[in-house]
Amino acid sequence: MKTSLTRRNFLAASAASLIPAAAGASVIHRSSGLLSILDDATQPQTTPHEDWKNSGVIDVSQSPHARLKTVPARSVTVGDGFWQKRRQTNVGSSIPSMHDELLEHGRLDNFLRLEGKSSAAQRGPVYSDSDIYKWLEAVGFAVQTGNQPQLQATAEAMMRTVAAAQEPSGYLNTYFVGDRSSQRMLPATQETGHELYCIGHMLQAAVAWYRATGDATLLHAGIRFVDDFLLPNYGPAPNQKPIVAGHPEIEMALIELYRTTRNRRYLELAGYILQGDPRIPLTERQITYMFCGVPFTSRTKLEGHAVRAMYACCGATDYYLETGDPAYWKTLNVLWNDLAQHQIYITGGVGARAAGESFGDPYELPNARAYGESCAAIGNMMWNYRMLAATGDAKFADVIERALYNGINSGMSLDGRTYCYRNPLAFDPSSGDRIRNPWYDTTCCPPNLERTMASLPGYFYSTTDDGLYVHLYENSELNWHLHDGTGLRVVQKTRYPWEGAVLLEVSPEHPAEFALNVRIPAWSAKSTVRVNGEAVAGAEPGQYLQIQRRWSGSDRVELGFEMAPQILRANPAVTENTGRVAMQRGPMVFCMEGLDQTVPPEQRNLAGFSVHASGATTASYDASLLDGVVVLEHEGSHEEAPPSSSLYFAADTPQPVASPATLRLIPYYSWANREPSEMQVWIPYIRA
Amino acid sequence: MKTSLTRRNFLAASAASLIPAAAGASVIHRSSGLLSILDDATQPQTTPHEDWKNSGVIDVSQSPHARLKTVPARSVTVGDGFWQKRRQTNVGSSIPSMHDELLEHGRLDNFLRLEGKSSAAQRGPVYSDSDIYKWLEAVGFAVQTGNQPQLQATAEAMMRTVAAAQEPSGYLNTYFVGDRSSQRMLPATQETGHELYCIGHMLQAAVAWYRATGDATLLHAGIRFVDDFLLPNYGPAPNQKPIVAGHPEIEMALIELYRTTRNRRYLELAGYILQGDPRIPLTERQITYMFCGVPFTSRTKLEGHAVRAMYACCGATDYYLETGDPAYWKTLNVLWNDLAQHQIYITGGVGARAAGESFGDPYELPNARAYGESCAAIGNMMWNYRMLAATGDAKFADVIERALYNGINSGMSLDGRTYCYRNPLAFDPSSGDRIRNPWYDTTCCPPNLERTMASLPGYFYSTTDDGLYVHLYENSELNWHLHDGTGLRVVQKTRYPWEGAVLLEVSPEHPAEFALNVRIPAWSAKSTVRVNGEAVAGAEPGQYLQIQRRWSGSDRVELGFEMAPQILRANPAVTENTGRVAMQRGPMVFCMEGLDQTVPPEQRNLAGFSVHASGATTASYDASLLDGVVVLEHEGSHEEAPPSSSLYFAADTPQPVASPATLRLIPYYSWANREPSEMQVWIPYIRA
Repeated sequence: MKTSLTRRNFLAASAASLIPAAAGASVIHRSSGLLSILDDATQPQTTPHEDWKNSGVIDVSQSPHARLKTVPARSVTVGDGFWQKRRQTNVGSSIPSMHDELLEHGRLDNFLRLEGKSSAAQRGPVYSDSDIYKWLEAVGFAVQTGNQPQLQATAEAMMRTVAAAQEPSGYLNTYFVGDRSSQRMLPATQETGHELYCIGHMLQAAVAWYRATGDATLLHAGIRFVDDFLLPNYGPAPNQKPIVAGHPEIEMALIELYRTTRNRRYLELAGYILQGDPRIPLTERQITYMFCGVPFTSRTKLEGHAVRAMYACCGATDYYLETGDPAYWKTLNVLWNDLAQHQIYITGGVGARAAGESFGDPYELPNARAYGESCAAIGNMMWNYRMLAATGDAKFADVIERALYNGINSGMSLDGRTYCYRNPLAFDPSSGDRIRNPWYDTTCCPPNLERTMASLPGYFYSTTDDGLYVHLYENSELNWHLHDGTGLRVVQKTRYPWEGAVLLEVSPEHPAEFALNVRIPAWSAKSTVRVNGEAVAGAEPGQYLQIQRRWSGSDRVELGFEMAPQILRANPAVTENTGRVAMQRGPMVFCMEGLDQTVPPEQRNLAGFSVHASGATTASYDASLLDGVVVLEHEGSHEEAPPSSSLYFAADTPQPVASPATLRLIPYYSWANREPSEMQVWIPYIRA
Repeated sequence: MKTSLTRRNFLAASAASLIPAAAGASVIHRSSGLLSILDDATQPQTTPHEDWKNSGVIDVSQSPHARLKTVPARSVTVGDGFWQKRRQTNVGSSIPSMHDELLEHGRLDNFLRLEGKSSAAQRGPVYSDSDIYKWLEAVGFAVQTGNQPQLQATAEAMMRTVAAAQEPSGYLNTYFVGDRSSQRMLPATQETGHELYCIGHMLQAAVAWYRATGDATLLHAGIRFVDDFLLPNYGPAPNQKPIVAGHPEIEMALIELYRTTRNRRYLELAGYILQGDPRIPLTERQITYMFCGVPFTSRTKLEGHAVRAMYACCGATDYYLETGDPAYWKTLNVLWNDLAQHQIYITGGVGARAAGESFGDPYELPNARAYGESCAAIGNMMWNYRMLAATGDAKFADVIERALYNGINSGMSLDGRTYCYRNPLAFDPSSGDRIRNPWYDTTCCPPNLERTMASLPGYFYSTTDDGLYVHLYENSELNWHLHDGTGLRVVQKTRYPWEGAVLLEVSPEHPAEFALNVRIPAWSAKSTVRVNGEAVAGAEPGQYLQIQRRWSGSDRVELGFEMAPQILRANPAVTENTGRVAMQRGPMVFCMEGLDQTVPPEQRNLAGFSVHASGATTASYDASLLDGVVVLEHEGSHEEAPPSSSLYFAADTPQPVASPATLRLIPYYSWANREPSEMQVWIPYIRA
């Protein structure tokens, strides 16, 4: 327990130096009395705290309004199972091949050129630096959770290249150089130029690396940007120039930097940016699209660019976790209810519209034309993880699970070499769309997927003063400690998500009384919980079951979740799903691909299949299919093509012949991993 | 018959002077041998033919490939009935109030300023001149079909103002003046600047006025633009600069000018524009969006901006009617099949997407988010009218009728003072959208609707060498003649579209043998036809029934169409209509508005209503509702709101209670004429 004691000592020491958190800090730039915090040149030089090893994906150990505290990703060792396969693909295939893609597309040359080590011209869109940073963050998390000497060496060299490109002023961006230098941080550039978005990703990578190895090379570069370039020149004071985030991201990055350094100016700067600065006037359209520039607390619904909105919500929740500002909490819950009631796909994806990569109207959830950008689903998971930290409410973990297993997991192919930008819920290959691609010129999604896979173990558990929370189920081993320092090992043995039985072996280093909070997924209508063979009552779907007892050191908790395939309807207001149902089993949403159907190819129009309320559904694991998946088979029907090629015909036109047919469904995440084929999640439904 | 003989003599004379139509003329600018036509300064000055009175909405009297010839709008007098009411509103309310709107928004000041008669700055978007021209065209047609002294005087003064703004070079545009003069007709300006689009509308207005009164003021201005400014400087020759239409419109206008003047250079110029000029390179996106700039005959599907595509198809069909180019005919039919099978709303609207006001993918026909711009539905009608002229195939007339009674008719409010730009098929007032507005800064739709209403009588009939075609049914009187000059009067007596009985009194000036071709609408599964009380066999839906006989001078033809309300399904590939049906009766598509339903307002969610296959539907005319409409009442059901506020729930969740309910439906065109209320065309359907 040496480590944890060291950590606690450090935290106690650093806490003493904190400026007290003030409610209403979000409006700090309106209050001249507080201006000094952001405008005080006498602030000491920033250094990170030394306990780099023990921080989680986000470090809320000191956050006054985080009920749940994160565990470091390295404290969880993932064993043989569903995510291990995906994570091995991530580290063995995705991250290395993306490295090659980044180099091939000039993303590193952009930095090398500034050091005179490349003669290549600038390449890629304005936000291309973030591609490098997100990839670095992915490797940082990979190193946190495993030994990756080759990737580590490559990344460390790359970080030195990045740091070397930084200007003496602290400014760092490979796009706004040379002739474009004069555009730096102009209001119009801030609106579209992604300078602070890139720095936000740089800071996140820097923090991930600091937490991986204690190497602060990139972190110091990030601190230099903020301390030397940003804070002296930009902020709310009359002698400072105004900031607009443009693409939210910097907010959560600054708060993570605050958590890493305890320099409160970073938190205050994030609060200022979340508030918006009226000195940069924006059009209604910009305010909607960018989801920033006006007080976050003035938002009443999710709208505009989905990734921007999700990242803004992440930053705002981080801000709440640190300040407890009730106006933020109110807004966050209004927005979350909008998400859950109107905007989330059954896959956990968000952002229905291709135009503006944006949220649509309430209930606007088209299937084939769903945008559902991978980054937006990741942003959704990140936001819900922060809401979960604030509350311990399982509804947020349900969203995390839904997004993770479906709309995020779909984004990376089984071989790890191609990625989805869009994640539609229906697909017609005759559209000519290529859904999975090894590279996008806007390649935000691929490294975002990689950092998510790499950091995944950090999402499994949280601790509270009372004990432990178990959020996600997977063969794995936790080695961490309770808040009182008692060492704790938890071994999970399960075939989740394919089977509903989970065995938890709970082993504190010595017998201890604490609460084990196990998540009962919302989809599990009937769950069983046993401790050492004895049934525990009270498991409710969508809740944590608290098992408060004295744990002796070798207790066995057996969980059993309801794995019968479920047929789901959508709210009738989702007009595209009228008369349709989707199938889910455990956390997995399923879909039909044309090539799995027994109907001859020439009759394979998926629109002709129907699920029957009376039809039986069976589930079986097929190890040879798609790296091993559960396949659902449903006894429904299939009808031939309509009697006319016209668009409209009489409803009493003799119905096409409907024949019994077995519908075969695979997990949504695994679609489009074979030859192009029709796909649908929502299937016509016959109530009889 | 004096008039018609005069006309025929004129036509015979002018036909002799024609340059023979050459197949392959569409590629004229590739053939140096034909370049001379567009590049020959010795061409005589253009003058319109003198027979202004007897031209139809389009004048295909000389078009070699027009099987059907138009009748002048003035030859049809509309009597008391459905369209008279709408047309009186058009002339008495819409056209005058739009005049005031145009003046209030500076559209006429834009011209007056150039004459030193206004000091107001330029106002309105780049295409604002076309607002004035479309309004003038509407008045021109109003004068063709009725005595409108006040409107005529206003319009004639306005035309003098327009003509006075023309520059000595022939150039005329109120936007590209002053500092913007240097941008004139640059390729980039042609792509987005709408100069030729505006001139196209000016030419159409000019032709409408010439055909109204013989006044060629505006026509001469238009000819000057083309003869003095355009033809000498722009075209395919090496010493000419290239043209791209940008927004198709000029093509059909030039061909109508050709028909009015017989100056074949206008036809050839239209052909050159339809072919595109490779000297103006375009991106794939521009080629898709603008629907011009590459050979029309290379198109394989409807795509891009819907109005542009429809106007391009109009121009291309006009070109086919004059040249018979088989490549054009092939492409036109490919595009029409795409329209009918994949792209047309049940209302006749086209252009599903708001983004780019564009066609969507095949079967992409959302309801609440339908764009369905009024102008696109009008373009659809105009195109089908030209296809009908080429063939006499009733399938084109069916599209005209569908668009006219529904997706066009909806565009003008019952009081004539507000207009739809979008014509969605479902509506939720909580969206905050205002669907009907008196003014749009892009005010293309309002005067487009006005010119359509004003020209409507011209669409009722056509003639062929064999006799007469009746396309549309309405109380009216035709006074025209057969191709041999025999005078012909046809009186229609009907309560169409509310009732299915039509009496045609057919009165040639002397007994004559000819064919009366009466359209049997595609929606009328069982139709009866009697001549002087005797049944005539052979009426088939979606065909013209040819009644070939000797007409004595007072024959009575009685038509009876099937007016039972019909329940229609959509092709299953239209995913938003899965499990839904629409109702149609006669040519009218119906919809539900929330405020007509008997369910209490707080439960009025339209998604809860279902049509039942077994439910009875009754139709009754309500003279007091919405200026008099037939209302459908259907015995279906209504279910309460779903049991959960969440988006997704188990299909076997206890169903909401469904209670028997009478669904009340009104004609689609009449929606949104009372307080804001929910609306839907496609209604959930229960097969039982």
